[in-house]
Amino acid sequence: MTTTPPLFTLLTDFGARDYYVAAVKGTVLGLAPGTTIVDLSHDIAPGDVEEAAFVLSAAAPSFPPSTLHLAVVDPGVGSARGIVLLENDTGSFLAPDNGLLSHEIARTGAISIAVDRPDLALPSAGATFHGRDRFAPIAAALLRGEPLERFGPSLPAPVRLPIPAPRQSPGLLSGRVAHIDRFGNVVTDIPAEWLGAGPVRVEIGAHGTDRAATHYAALAPGEAGWIVGSLGTVEVALCGADLAAAWSVRRGAEVRVLHG
Amino acid sequence: MTTTPPLFTLLTDFGARDYYVAAVKGTVLGLAPGTTIVDLSHDIAPGDVEEAAFVLSAAAPSFPPSTLHLAVVDPGVGSARGIVLLENDTGSFLAPDNGLLSHEIARTGAISIAVDRPDLALPSAGATFHGRDRFAPIAAALLRGEPLERFGPSLPAPVRLPIPAPRQSPGLLSGRVAHIDRFGNVVTDIPAEWLGAGPVRVEIGAHGTDRAATHYAALAPGEAGWIVGSLGTVEVALCGADLAAAWSVRRGAEVRVLHG
Amino acid sequence: MTTTPPLFTLLTDFGARDYYVAAVKGTVLGLAPGTTIVDLSHDIAPGDVEEAAFVLSAAAPSFPPSTLHLAVVDPGVGSARGIVLLENDTGSFLAPDNGLLSHEIARTGAISIAVDRPDLALPSAGATFHGRDRFAPIAAALLRGEPLERFGPSLPAPVRLPIPAPRQSPGLLSGRVAHIDRFGNVVTDIPAEWLGAGPVRVEIGAHGTDRAATHYAALAPGEAGWIVGSLGTVEVALCGADLAAAWSVRRGAEVRVLHG
Repeated sequence: MTTTPPLFTLLTDFGARDYYVAAVKGTVLGLAPGTTIVDLSHDIAPGDVEEAAFVLSAAAPSFPPSTLHLAVVDPGVGSARGIVLLENDTGSFLAPDNGLLSHEIARTGAISIAVDRPDLALPSAGATFHGRDRFAPIAAALLRGEPLERFGPSLPAPVRLPIPAPRQSPGLLSGRVAHIDRFGNVVTDIPAEWLGAGPVRVEIGAHGTDRAATHYAALAPGEAGWIVGSLGTVEVALCGADLAAAWSVRRGAEVRVLHG
Repeated sequence: MTTTPPLFTLLTDFGARDYYVAAVKGTVLGLAPGTTIVDLSHDIAPGDVEEAAFVLSAAAPSFPPSTLHLAVVDPGVGSARGIVLLENDTGSFLAPDNGLLSHEIARTGAISIAVDRPDLALPSAGATFHGRDRFAPIAAALLRGEPLERFGPSLPAPVRLPIPAPRQSPGLLSGRVAHIDRFGNVVTDIPAEWLGAGPVRVEIGAHGTDRAATHYAALAPGEAGWIVGSLGTVEVALCGADLAAAWSVRRGAEVRVLHG
Repeated sequence: MTTTPPLFTLLTDFGARDYYVAAVKGTVLGLAPGTTIVDLSHDIAPGDVEEAAFVLSAAAPSFPPSTLHLAVVDPGVGSARGIVLLENDTGSFLAPDNGLLSHEIARTGAISIAVDRPDLALPSAGATFHGRDRFAPIAAALLRGEPLERFGPSLPAPVRLPIPAPRQSPGLLSGRVAHIDRFGNVVTDIPAEWLGAGPVRVEIGAHGTDRAATHYAALAPGEAGWIVGSLGTVEVALCGADLAAAWSVRRGAEVRVLHG
């Protein structure tokens, strides 16, 4: 009987130029041979835990629930911040306890562990590269099949980012810009299923649109429109151009949706 | 008996920062476990179908013919544009029917299918991420071994980009800049095998060179030269510097080769 | 009996946009099916052999010694420069003989071979892409298990970069900036084990700091400090900001460490 080797994803702010990503992968592959590694992203802005939390939560549902996701965006590396191991119905997640798993905590079936396995730490002169020296060997032990309960005690309240939830009131949905993607599409946190059947107007700062579109190419050049995006939330876009630049939108900006 | 798992490549304009590439990979690995995935590139300029077609055609011959190549540069995502599955002697190719397979159509043994498999589509709130919701499950079905003919009817004329072919006349070869690479080397579409045995002069816009070189380091600093490039076409380069910037060359520019 | 397929890493200056990296991988996977490929980096600055040598030497120790590392930063491609195959206790290394293996030569157990295997070269119109046409098939032959001694004669003195070694004198350590990472951390070549127990001051150009920190977050905003970095050398950093930019530091700059 053959089994497919475990899937392992990696999300960091290490960038593509340095040796950091490769060192984590080499360590995992040395300790858990045969692991299939998939990059989530390594171009998270340095130290941007919120961006990492978004990318992780957006990618994870596309992977089998048996997948282990390691996310290391860790400005507090070497400090007293803990390491959290979280399982939910979507997958398993290993990360610094700094809010990176904020969206995973909220999913069905979430249980968290405060990882306490100093025996797994690799010897290192410094304390600046826990991705290689701490997280990778813990990930490898999980990938080799060590059961969750051996990694430490239950963690009742992992750190959460102070991200406000979107709100509904009669005729008005309020939320925020959750992400701006490579194309300049503005992804909000407002669930499209909250929308009524009537006309919709989306406003961000001094700009707004009431043009509904099912896809980008339905928009005329230069015409902004709102769309149900790939995460099921309201998205605002231009066709073939960068709406975030045109409207000067930044992540976290307030979004107002007026709907009938 | 063991068989090597199928090879699968991925070419997109999704960039490295977002979750899009990972979501496609996770979907494929969930539906076709054990697949070996190789990135062709994800840094195609947003919506640049011609650049994607070039990169795909340049990379594919280096892979075994059993490889499945998925290319998603798809500004028309969600519109009525079709999905094309093409096989030729070089490999199998899955892409939106927007010209991305222009160079593959021209290869020996090409047959095309208009993919019609709504049963494979993943449920999704939106219509903006066919890479994940449509292309990935089709690719996975192919990787699991479903035969070509089950994916839809023959497609006699997939969309081709209006890229003019290079031309030969006595003493003059005419073509265009097909690609500018990371180093600023200018790759033309003029086959080196068209060159005669005599002297050669390559002209692009107001610039030109009659310096032949077998490799970059044969050129003096600041000296432009022409070279037989890695695709067997005429290439113009500087040694250790960016010729495209120095000569202000853009893709698509006319190239004239005067030769004896 | 199953064995884990060999590990293979790839380090280049090919960038992420072109087809070059994929062509090397496709060639290797076609000739040595089942190989597990890990990217070290492809964002080495064009032709920057020293940067490549650093990244390679920093990443390799995290991989099993059975790993084959291919590094192609090769401004002399097509010239008479040789190809070197080196084995040491850390791994196996294949590269142009241009100094890229400078740090590997110095490791325990290093033996070098001048690769002479024209029989393995792939037919190619040009001489500009040895990564695909020469290095990839040699790598594949190694990955298939061909023994080292079949690849060519011993190479007594592979090319070394003229990088001065750090120096110790009473109360003063002298070295240089070996690397500036994505975060703007300044990595020096001065071993932290050379430091005494007393106070330490690190100076680069007109700037300096005597603030010792065990990790980045121990520093106040805007406060520079020195740290024992992930390679066991002295590193200078800001917390959450780019020290190299703030101090205008470039690789190769002189570093002075005054210590008690």
